[in-house]
Amino acid sequence: MSRLVKIINPRDFEKEERAGIPAEVSIRAQAIMDDVAKRGMDALSEYSEKFDNFKLDSGNVLVSASEIDSAESRLDETQKRAIDEAFERVSKVQREIAKDALRECACKVGEGSVALVPRAISRVGIYVPGGVAPLPSSLLMAGIPARAAGVKEIIVCTPPRKEGVSPAILYAAKKLGIDKIYRIGGTQAIAAMAYGIPGIMGKVDMACGPGNVYAAAAKQIAASSGLLKVDLVAGPSEVLIIAGEGARADYAAADMLAQAEHGVNSPAILLTKSGEFAEGVEAELEKQLAELPNSENAEKSLRNYGAIVVVESIAQAQEIADSYAPEHLEILGKDAQEIAKGVTNAGAVFVNTCESFADYGMSGGNHILPTGGTARFLSGLSVYEFIVRTYIEVMEGSEQEELAELAGAFGDLEGLNAHANAARLRKKGAKK
Amino acid sequence: MSRLVKIINPRDFEKEERAGIPAEVSIRAQAIMDDVAKRGMDALSEYSEKFDNFKLDSGNVLVSASEIDSAESRLDETQKRAIDEAFERVSKVQREIAKDALRECACKVGEGSVALVPRAISRVGIYVPGGVAPLPSSLLMAGIPARAAGVKEIIVCTPPRKEGVSPAILYAAKKLGIDKIYRIGGTQAIAAMAYGIPGIMGKVDMACGPGNVYAAAAKQIAASSGLLKVDLVAGPSEVLIIAGEGARADYAAADMLAQAEHGVNSPAILLTKSGEFAEGVEAELEKQLAELPNSENAEKSLRNYGAIVVVESIAQAQEIADSYAPEHLEILGKDAQEIAKGVTNAGAVFVNTCESFADYGMSGGNHILPTGGTARFLSGLSVYEFIVRTYIEVMEGSEQEELAELAGAFGDLEGLNAHANAARLRKKGAKK
Repeated sequence: MSRLVKIINPRDFEKEERAGIPAEVSIRAQAIMDDVAKRGMDALSEYSEKFDNFKLDSGNVLVSASEIDSAESRLDETQKRAIDEAFERVSKVQREIAKDALRECACKVGEGSVALVPRAISRVGIYVPGGVAPLPSSLLMAGIPARAAGVKEIIVCTPPRKEGVSPAILYAAKKLGIDKIYRIGGTQAIAAMAYGIPGIMGKVDMACGPGNVYAAAAKQIAASSGLLKVDLVAGPSEVLIIAGEGARADYAAADMLAQAEHGVNSPAILLTKSGEFAEGVEAELEKQLAELPNSENAEKSLRNYGAIVVVESIAQAQEIADSYAPEHLEILGKDAQEIAKGVTNAGAVFVNTCESFADYGMSGGNHILPTGGTARFLSGLSVYEFIVRTYIEVMEGSEQEELAELAGAFGDLEGLNAHANAARLRKKGAKK
Repeated sequence: MSRLVKIINPRDFEKEERAGIPAEVSIRAQAIMDDVAKRGMDALSEYSEKFDNFKLDSGNVLVSASEIDSAESRLDETQKRAIDEAFERVSKVQREIAKDALRECACKVGEGSVALVPRAISRVGIYVPGGVAPLPSSLLMAGIPARAAGVKEIIVCTPPRKEGVSPAILYAAKKLGIDKIYRIGGTQAIAAMAYGIPGIMGKVDMACGPGNVYAAAAKQIAASSGLLKVDLVAGPSEVLIIAGEGARADYAAADMLAQAEHGVNSPAILLTKSGEFAEGVEAELEKQLAELPNSENAEKSLRNYGAIVVVESIAQAQEIADSYAPEHLEILGKDAQEIAKGVTNAGAVFVNTCESFADYGMSGGNHILPTGGTARFLSGLSVYEFIVRTYIEVMEGSEQEELAELAGAFGDLEGLNAHANAARLRKKGAKK
């Protein structure tokens, strides 16, 4: 009988087995974006009917104030407390980060000065999936750092539903002070953010939030066309768990399943020194999967992208983790703190905690994180990503006279005559 | 007789007249990248012969230590002083920025903690154009913030030339402590950085530096494929000048020409309240252009992308500048400091100084800046761009027991059963 998850040794672990955006998806996303750019609200209405089975028009595209206000009463106390607690914890951390991220650097240079002046991006759009499963947590994870950075205008797009927008999303939006919530789904939402919809919404400077592969493709297209900045272009979500001494097999299995249920191609990787522990986790996975109400995605992900790797040493596990550069690195066991010190490349590191707490703001971090190995060079979302910095350079006339010849010589070196000329014109006694 | 630069009023100013990357360029860049990924050194040799007329092989692709060492003696004293002065000034500013950018944020959350831990990107590649005009200044502008951030490994790629690499580039590289300099041009260089060349060079995590439109396309492709981070994907370089009271027409004209010579589609825009000043600058442009040795590019840029806009007020000029979001914003005149305060969107602001000083490090800023209006959401290059931040989240077992139900409720809200299960497993008394 074949195992749910393969148990392998390190040399059989293929870290490249991660899914990208298929070319045909990008082509279709591009076509939808072009259409929305050209036909605005008419295109939105058509796609809404086609993809969301919803009659959308300029009269109902914006969620009404009364729908937003009534949301709170449609949540139970535990649901509200869950959102409140996440809001408080994540806000506390982002406010702290903002103190560093918003520092202005001013520096005297010769007789002049240079300042690197930070400011918040002006307009941010957050896409919140809301079809099958509404994701209020993602709204908090994008909205809280945006607010902490000082972003003035935040709008939300979320797919239209017959029963109205999920009250959890509306409640979270209200806590964030967001009153512009548009019923626009997926690719069209990113297009609307990039180009604006005449008479309906202005374009934004930055688009945030998760979505399916089409929304990801649209974000990638909008960003590389220079239309806006994106938080991150999310590939399939992934976890790599290092189980140290005393790690619990049921925890490891539960966390692998939580990862795997994100989609049909979400890698959940476990590294352990113990073959016995590996077998124990595999057995737990089979058992817990059987008890899960909706287990289809999780099973597909585990069968095709899951792996339990039996390593020779913790050092080898650290090396594999560093080279894999996972979105989520979870470290379990008595020596978790020690093990964490030996890995640098990861979106977020969970030390004896798990993705469920992190995804829902209980541990205070952010769940919008770099996937597919990009943690080597990209950061998880924080206030820093909502800040733009401008160099302000002031130079005195007298110093310009002194430096004119050096800048002129540099221009000559690079074959840029007009550069050299503009510099030398600042020389003392240069003809007026 | 038609003017070199049109003098227009604000309602005729089309800020969208900026060139992007043509689709066919991206297609060709992609083909070259795929080929380099597949055939490594063999592909590099072929393209080198084709594009640079140079016989490249694994024996001569790396610049020798003796070639690097001999560079200094091939520069004259003024050239060396120009590079030295730029190095000192830019380094001083970036070291100051590094103090802020490298702050670790640690924050207590409940009984646990979150830290956002910065680290420098591990491997950076800098592309330095070197065919017609070598650009040692760009090497400094990318290399200095990388070093100040703490990047451990920096490599350089620059096109091969019969006479060897420009001594100015080698001298700048040596000052930066870079000893791996590869003779690889344009698109192939970006491909080599993204994929690595077996036996020759490892792949890098971030690619920096300017280049032609093919190199820009390659950077865009590599970044959106998640292969590496790029500093910025540069469109045509541009300047917007606001001339206030007492601005000099010859300075404004010289600076427009310095901008225009960057290519055949570099916008140089001047905003002034005075029709008379506008005419004066136009006359200066004609005069100075005639005196310039290589004026072909500058003339094309000015005719097709240049404009002098006569505004009704400084407030209107500020509004236009903010909406244009220029790469370079130059403000001339007695009231320059005041005018600067009213504009936020710009890559860099030069207050009574000019791009020639800024491009060559004399004013201490950076010349790798966002183009095409992306200054709305992207920053000029600094230490910040070379830093990755990882969330480290630690949570106590006792707190997990308390929060398990809230995280569980959140999982239910989002229809993620395995998330809810993983959280609730941490509850007190949950079955082991």
